[in-house]
Amino acid sequence: MPELRKDPIIDRWVIISTERAQRPVFLADQETAPKAGICPLCEGNEAMTPPEVFSIRPPGQVSYPNTPGWTLRVVPNKFPALRIEGALNKEGVGLYDRMNGVGAHEVIVETPKHGQTLYTMDVPAVQNVLMAYKERTIDLLRDKRFKFIMIFKNHGAIAGASLDHSHSQLIALPIVPRRVSEEIHGGLTYYKYKDRCVFCDIIAQEAEDNSRVIYENDEYIALSPFAARFPFETWILPKNHVASFLASENGDSYRSLADALSHVLRKNNKVLYAPPYNYMVHTAPADMASVPYFHWHIEIIPRLTKMAGFEWGTGFYINPTPPEQATLFLREASLSEGS
Amino acid sequence: MPELRKDPIIDRWVIISTERAQRPVFLADQETAPKAGICPLCEGNEAMTPPEVFSIRPPGQVSYPNTPGWTLRVVPNKFPALRIEGALNKEGVGLYDRMNGVGAHEVIVETPKHGQTLYTMDVPAVQNVLMAYKERTIDLLRDKRFKFIMIFKNHGAIAGASLDHSHSQLIALPIVPRRVSEEIHGGLTYYKYKDRCVFCDIIAQEAEDNSRVIYENDEYIALSPFAARFPFETWILPKNHVASFLASENGDSYRSLADALSHVLRKNNKVLYAPPYNYMVHTAPADMASVPYFHWHIEIIPRLTKMAGFEWGTGFYINPTPPEQATLFLREASLSEGS
Repeated sequence: MPELRKDPIIDRWVIISTERAQRPVFLADQETAPKAGICPLCEGNEAMTPPEVFSIRPPGQVSYPNTPGWTLRVVPNKFPALRIEGALNKEGVGLYDRMNGVGAHEVIVETPKHGQTLYTMDVPAVQNVLMAYKERTIDLLRDKRFKFIMIFKNHGAIAGASLDHSHSQLIALPIVPRRVSEEIHGGLTYYKYKDRCVFCDIIAQEAEDNSRVIYENDEYIALSPFAARFPFETWILPKNHVASFLASENGDSYRSLADALSHVLRKNNKVLYAPPYNYMVHTAPADMASVPYFHWHIEIIPRLTKMAGFEWGTGFYINPTPPEQATLFLREASLSEGS
Repeated sequence: MPELRKDPIIDRWVIISTERAQRPVFLADQETAPKAGICPLCEGNEAMTPPEVFSIRPPGQVSYPNTPGWTLRVVPNKFPALRIEGALNKEGVGLYDRMNGVGAHEVIVETPKHGQTLYTMDVPAVQNVLMAYKERTIDLLRDKRFKFIMIFKNHGAIAGASLDHSHSQLIALPIVPRRVSEEIHGGLTYYKYKDRCVFCDIIAQEAEDNSRVIYENDEYIALSPFAARFPFETWILPKNHVASFLASENGDSYRSLADALSHVLRKNNKVLYAPPYNYMVHTAPADMASVPYFHWHIEIIPRLTKMAGFEWGTGFYINPTPPEQATLFLREASLSEGS
């Protein structure tokens, strides 16, 4: 059973998860590890994963769960960081605090084809991925042990992906994590002072200033944040105030979001030569889905630089690329039809 | 001039430093980048660095600054994240905050020999490195613009080092960074409640429990922290309460600290095959050098796993190696004489 331990000095929890040590790549250099011959996420290899919890199959075509014919598939992670079984026990050990690692860890297999990625998939396929996030989140939040669902993607070994096949992940947590609390706290502090959402104000200022706007459509805006931590860091936000990712699905099944996400990724693909990247969906916790002081968004981080001692020690980042410059590069790149 | 920008949502500053983009390795894959033919940190190449600000030269031997004959040398970083010139100007830009990037960025060249590292250097050589940290910190703190001196080391390309030659770095900052404030705040909260230092309590509990103690000598203890974020993360702490690294030099010129640091690194070298790593000196800010609620220490992080989307999104870490297991591995490894 995985275990959650709290750092006794700062509010930081750690998952001690020995089951993940069984993953074949652990302690190997992921950059040079040979790829396994058979991909467990490919169509036809459904038996190599735990049984699916969700799938999208083309309408009008007969196919059964855990057999070929799907366009998207969600399965429990074979090496989960947290376990779905058991009650949430909290205990002290001398001055330390720990909990057992109750949670869920799922893999969203974004395409049946091994060579495809979000860089190359069309907008409807990206839309399917976003709809899967929504469906799985709604289902998992029925379990009252879960306080927060973290949706994220690791693309490429340098970004932490242990499988080549295009996928994203979702982890349901028994506590609201620190990074989320900090953001909510920041938004609340601003709201108390100004009676406005800080994210809404950012969007207004950026739209006016226009030096850090990468892309916008009717519903979404993509920005290089003013205090970008990393070169080409990009945030995608709904233009209207919405605290929760779930609440943003306004009848178009995330069509506009898929358009914005796909646009930014195709630009990164072109300008930065298909870099490894992470993205994270920053959304309000389940019980704060309609607060006026938090505004959900996606943060995309191409992995071009390394975290080093200075960043670990200070929580301070050194970014060699001004966001205004990154914006220009991305704006100027032309996307040929279908690229 | 580099620029400091504050994230408008959480208390996180970023250094936008275009000068570092001139470093030859930027945007190249550091793992595969060819090494430059001539090392600017080697003995004999003193003219390739800015003039030295400190050096250790063997007693009784005549040698001049910026010429061969040194055993350790400190020089300003050729591609500094922050600039020493100028006053500290703070300004707002709409809802954003920024400062100009005043600070100092120095490189401690730990040895004149290219092949040597802290894994192989003897204890007196490690002691020189620690004494250099002290001398440079004292000197820089004379400049009242600086609120905090961050001392850290990146070993290996994966850990962010852009030069092979064994070195550590020091950055003087005009503000106390967030990670340091958080730790101090955590210590203060505990102190207010218990009237004791949380680090002192940790040391007492760990010494009693003994399942996470890697090494100790008269003055220092090396632990696998209870909530270790990473496999084989190790902290070295003075056994007696001292808030500041500077105040810990009790007449033995950091001899005991060099012994403990060298011991841990040689164990890592043996058990983990000379892994890339970072270490950071966590010390109290200049104006808190003798507070009862903070306890200086060194955090060593071997870089065996990757930061990925989950860690970025949550501030939560997944560690596949329980610290008790890491401790056992390290304790059991034997160090042959001189290794």
